[in-house]
Amino acid sequence: MIFNDFVEEEKNMKKVNYAVLGAGNGGQCVSAYLKLKGYEVSLYDRYESVIEPIKEKGGIDLKGVSLNGFARIDNITTDIKQAVEGADVILVVLPAFAHEYIAEILSPILKDGQIVVLCPGSTGGVLEFKRVLKGKNCNSNIKLAETNSLFYACRVVAPGDAVIGGIKGIMPIAALPSSDADEIIDIMRDPYPQLVKEENVLVSDMSNMNAVIHPLPVLLNTGWIEATNGNFKYYYDGITPTIGKLIEGIDSERMEICRALGIKVKSFKESMYAYYRAQGESICEMVRNVDAYKIVNAPGKIESRLLTEDVPMGLVPMTELAKLVKVKTPLMDMTIELASTLLERDLKADGRTLEKLGIKGMDREGLLNYIR
Amino acid sequence: MIFNDFVEEEKNMKKVNYAVLGAGNGGQCVSAYLKLKGYEVSLYDRYESVIEPIKEKGGIDLKGVSLNGFARIDNITTDIKQAVEGADVILVVLPAFAHEYIAEILSPILKDGQIVVLCPGSTGGVLEFKRVLKGKNCNSNIKLAETNSLFYACRVVAPGDAVIGGIKGIMPIAALPSSDADEIIDIMRDPYPQLVKEENVLVSDMSNMNAVIHPLPVLLNTGWIEATNGNFKYYYDGITPTIGKLIEGIDSERMEICRALGIKVKSFKESMYAYYRAQGESICEMVRNVDAYKIVNAPGKIESRLLTEDVPMGLVPMTELAKLVKVKTPLMDMTIELASTLLERDLKADGRTLEKLGIKGMDREGLLNYIR
Repeated sequence: MIFNDFVEEEKNMKKVNYAVLGAGNGGQCVSAYLKLKGYEVSLYDRYESVIEPIKEKGGIDLKGVSLNGFARIDNITTDIKQAVEGADVILVVLPAFAHEYIAEILSPILKDGQIVVLCPGSTGGVLEFKRVLKGKNCNSNIKLAETNSLFYACRVVAPGDAVIGGIKGIMPIAALPSSDADEIIDIMRDPYPQLVKEENVLVSDMSNMNAVIHPLPVLLNTGWIEATNGNFKYYYDGITPTIGKLIEGIDSERMEICRALGIKVKSFKESMYAYYRAQGESICEMVRNVDAYKIVNAPGKIESRLLTEDVPMGLVPMTELAKLVKVKTPLMDMTIELASTLLERDLKADGRTLEKLGIKGMDREGLLNYIR
Repeated sequence: MIFNDFVEEEKNMKKVNYAVLGAGNGGQCVSAYLKLKGYEVSLYDRYESVIEPIKEKGGIDLKGVSLNGFARIDNITTDIKQAVEGADVILVVLPAFAHEYIAEILSPILKDGQIVVLCPGSTGGVLEFKRVLKGKNCNSNIKLAETNSLFYACRVVAPGDAVIGGIKGIMPIAALPSSDADEIIDIMRDPYPQLVKEENVLVSDMSNMNAVIHPLPVLLNTGWIEATNGNFKYYYDGITPTIGKLIEGIDSERMEICRALGIKVKSFKESMYAYYRAQGESICEMVRNVDAYKIVNAPGKIESRLLTEDVPMGLVPMTELAKLVKVKTPLMDMTIELASTLLERDLKADGRTLEKLGIKGMDREGLLNYIR
């Protein structure tokens, strides 16, 4: 069986080392999955309290996919330097509001040839990351990309005890420059065959559906969420006809920004159909026809990532891009203002402004050239 | 019993004739109550469909107060002229958005000496009414006033079948000019001993608590209202800690406008204590300590008077008065905008602007002089 031995050897030669940054639900699932696939994996989190129980266990028990079992993680650490040393691919599996911090601490230690992928980038993740690296004079020749969402629907039952509920069938990934995506997809093809190249980061950023489907519905369900600690079906019950209409309004603003930028993205309704074959005239109807939505509860409180992430790292950069191409976004603006009022925090100032994205002062042509 | 006969005769001599405009819940209760008190009463409504069933019955069955019984109404009509002819006091018991129309159709037929009372005026009822009469060159020497709310908590089970749930103990009434209030209170003392003089219409207008407690909580309960057709306790469950905080924010803006106008009104918390002896640190706590609130359901849909009346005839004129004294009202503005978006209607344009109140171009001193 000479031929087979040769294939096996080649596979080993191409073996990719991964570092997973962030040991929350997503990070634990990703690192366990990669380990069970046979890769060397480092798992990093900033917080001792998160890392300690996983370290004690020595790894992560993974359930829910064909790759069930205990994944002994090679390196579980709060030391970022140790985590990324020797890693070919660094997967950042963290809320988008942590990206800036991660970029700052990575900037002095990134090495030529390393790949950093934000999983996902929300809106403007790669642009912000690049701005930070530039600001810190990081001259390492790295590749930078962002996915459109996380690879899995997953949760962690207890530290080191993770369940993958479903694997997404298609996962767009965009790089900066966009041509880098091909090589990244190639390198990650074995564990993640679902990766497909997105045209550029702008398309990925403007396809962030969380910004469309999370903040406004949460706000207009404030009473219900607080009165019941989120004990109702967020999509199935919470996206009512009126709220559905407003979602469509927000989505129209998003599509208008994209038209003005000259990029093509799916409308919310189109992507509902593409992902779930959801039928229906209105968004309310479509949402109610998606089985996966029937079991998703509302957040337990108003202060949740559906606002703290999807407003400053979703709606805010969208309105900022809108300004760049002179598109009005009254519904997005109102949503940002209402969320800021409720959370008693200026989510616009905290969010990804043109300045934070490193594209302030650019016009449309300059921007398209920059993200090419 | 010569003395008693004399008293009886004097009472008869002073007998007051009432016209009640509006045959909804409030109008039916008011006219039945007045009739059972022994007054001559005309009941008007614009719509045949409202008037016809009451006319067929010949009057209104009233329950719930000591004055139980069938009130045979003297005149039940859709003819406004016939309704107000010979009336000493005309009580307008209609949603505030009907006041402008009523003023227009009353303007050619009002007679010297007649009293018109808006029950209630919401914010700016009397000012708007006066502006319409002036615009229509109505020179009749009438007296014009507004109460702060309706006399009763009441409902109509079926046409001509009314129930008064409670009578409010104190009912502020403001006239324009304010000195007219004394005579009006005197004339209405027998059926309505609870009337007390409010300093002026501005104080009454800015004391419209519905504007504080209705629109924003409805908006932030949009999902819950639509998903359950309002099947939850509007105050008890719907005024959550976060919503209570925003109510306090709206109320602070109202108090700030009053300070700038130089008038004194109760804060929402003060009036909660004054009306209900409600205890509690926060508005959420106070509301939950009011027994009367425990049984009030949410509106069955978003399109309800809690928005269609309390925004254009409540928040809008408050923000207009704020402009006059250069006070910023970001929370009120946002609430108006959100309500307009949800109802797909420009509630600001539909509402009581300074122009509609007949006070455009006035400064603070001019206004205070005008409403003196």
